[in-house]
Amino acid sequence: MAMQRYGMAVRLKDEKRQYYIENHANVWPEILEELKKINVQNYSIFLKEDFMFGYLEYTGNDFDGDMGNMQQIPIVEKWTKLMIDCFNPFPNNEDNNSWVMMDEIFHLD
Amino acid sequence: MAMQRYGMAVRLKDEKRQYYIENHANVWPEILEELKKINVQNYSIFLKEDFMFGYLEYTGNDFDGDMGNMQQIPIVEKWTKLMIDCFNPFPNNEDNNSWVMMDEIFHLD
Repeated sequence: MAMQRYGMAVRLKDEKRQYYIENHANVWPEILEELKKINVQNYSIFLKEDFMFGYLEYTGNDFDGDMGNMQQIPIVEKWTKLMIDCFNPFPNNEDNNSWVMMDEIFHLD
Repeated sequence: MAMQRYGMAVRLKDEKRQYYIENHANVWPEILEELKKINVQNYSIFLKEDFMFGYLEYTGNDFDGDMGNMQQIPIVEKWTKLMIDCFNPFPNNEDNNSWVMMDEIFHLD
């Protein structure tokens, strides 16, 4: 399967900013291992003001399925719950309190 | 020089949205060539609502210098002027009417 790129966005609660930054400087090793297992690579998170942008590359063949299965793993579920508690919904996406997927409108290899 | 990753953010004016999207589906070939010449690679732009995020990788050794020099090239200057006219400043960055650089707070190879 060819590599696919994903961009996603969310906002950080002010009172959780330092907590999120510190935890992402020291992500639990089990989370990184599980991401690698489902073929996520070159994954970065960027922050400006309270906006976050995530970029990742995926080389598997069922991104939604792999991500969904990964979320069932107890330690991942625990991590995700702690992180989602740091988020504010992206503007006009109050129905989703976590990352929203973005549309790629340009790419240069 | 090792590869460096850059994340950047800006907003799109509603009335320029289609113009920007169409132009980025068909970027002038000269612009793409100049980006490659200064060692920019794997460059993507993502859009959600009126927020845009850019991700690129740079393998040269003077990003600011290379970018500055590229902006002096007449066709690049012309392109950039047209594109900047599509932007709204990122929140709390009204002094910068173009892309603002973000901080990388997480990376997984």
